[in-house]
Amino acid sequence: MKLQLALDDITMEKAVDLVENVQEFIDVIEIGTPMVIEYGMEPVRIMKKRFPNKEILADLKIMDAGFYEAKEALEAGADYITVLGVTDNLTIKGCVEAAKEYHAKVVVDMICVDNLPSRIRKMEELGVDFVSVHVGVDQQAAGRTPLDDLKIMSECVTCAKVSVAGGINVESIPSYKAYNPDIVIVGSGITHAKDSKEAAKAIHQAIKE
Amino acid sequence: MKLQLALDDITMEKAVDLVENVQEFIDVIEIGTPMVIEYGMEPVRIMKKRFPNKEILADLKIMDAGFYEAKEALEAGADYITVLGVTDNLTIKGCVEAAKEYHAKVVVDMICVDNLPSRIRKMEELGVDFVSVHVGVDQQAAGRTPLDDLKIMSECVTCAKVSVAGGINVESIPSYKAYNPDIVIVGSGITHAKDSKEAAKAIHQAIKE
Repeated sequence: MKLQLALDDITMEKAVDLVENVQEFIDVIEIGTPMVIEYGMEPVRIMKKRFPNKEILADLKIMDAGFYEAKEALEAGADYITVLGVTDNLTIKGCVEAAKEYHAKVVVDMICVDNLPSRIRKMEELGVDFVSVHVGVDQQAAGRTPLDDLKIMSECVTCAKVSVAGGINVESIPSYKAYNPDIVIVGSGITHAKDSKEAAKAIHQAIKE
Repeated sequence: MKLQLALDDITMEKAVDLVENVQEFIDVIEIGTPMVIEYGMEPVRIMKKRFPNKEILADLKIMDAGFYEAKEALEAGADYITVLGVTDNLTIKGCVEAAKEYHAKVVVDMICVDNLPSRIRKMEELGVDFVSVHVGVDQQAAGRTPLDDLKIMSECVTCAKVSVAGGINVESIPSYKAYNPDIVIVGSGITHAKDSKEAAKAIHQAIKE
């Protein structure tokens, strides 16, 4: 089980300092969508150079132009790119093709997908590497957690790996670990923790023990 | 009817030169998703400064964190931001709130929305400014055009304005004009035309006449 740190509502400078501070506890550095919107692919390049032993995920949430947009992040050095499960199959295919060219991985963000089991089957058929359970921040604010969807997903997948995101923190990590996802994604549970290093350490210990 | 120029697979430098060249014929400069992925909000700031009399649209295709992500583009100077129609209502609401604060406009990209009439009703209820018919480049490659959806949309809307995108060019513009959308979006029909200025001029004439 890997720990992915999602960097969302944070400046470039603070993001680098934070990763510096927690690097021994994390496996994947996620350049979150809000950082992509603000800075483009610069954070991918900077993090790759600064932390060459970490994997980088560019959370593009691709909805169209799969090959082209995936390639932008892959050229910048991303090891994983995300595409939305709600998009059409041709866009997913484009992402898979681009990722193969760069020996990188496609993560399908299943946010707002209605029928998880049937969409997961299709995603596996199209050759994606990961399907990702995701309850967005707007839905979290309305009280939803990704736990129910993770249960469904962990029962459905046959060959794709699973990651999970949506308000996970030190307190809730054991419930997620129980379903044995391949990657656990934590954002504000570390970035907005009183002590980010302690939070990262505790979550790391919880998933590795 | 306004003409929106979508800048997608183009470098920053070429984008500025192109807008310089066609500015008299266009109303809205769209910083397309591929440019956002590459450059973040820098193109929004640069275009706003360089062409203060044009409106700027940031094609964020927001899927989550509506308020926060919309605000990033609005702070940078965007007059319009886009959110995906397939996302949940809370995210749309967040975008509408942010846009109100900045006296800007929310455009809902209806790409991959299944039930257009019912989703359009909901979008109008949530107070969005525009609904946008959009057949993505990956679907265009499979032979689809936005014309059928534009017909449905133009029959359904009651208060929202309508824009349309998806492979529109000099040849096809008359078919779109017939449905009287508020904004026609042209990307490669101008950016990849043999003579971009001539193409922009011809499309401008077609919609204004």
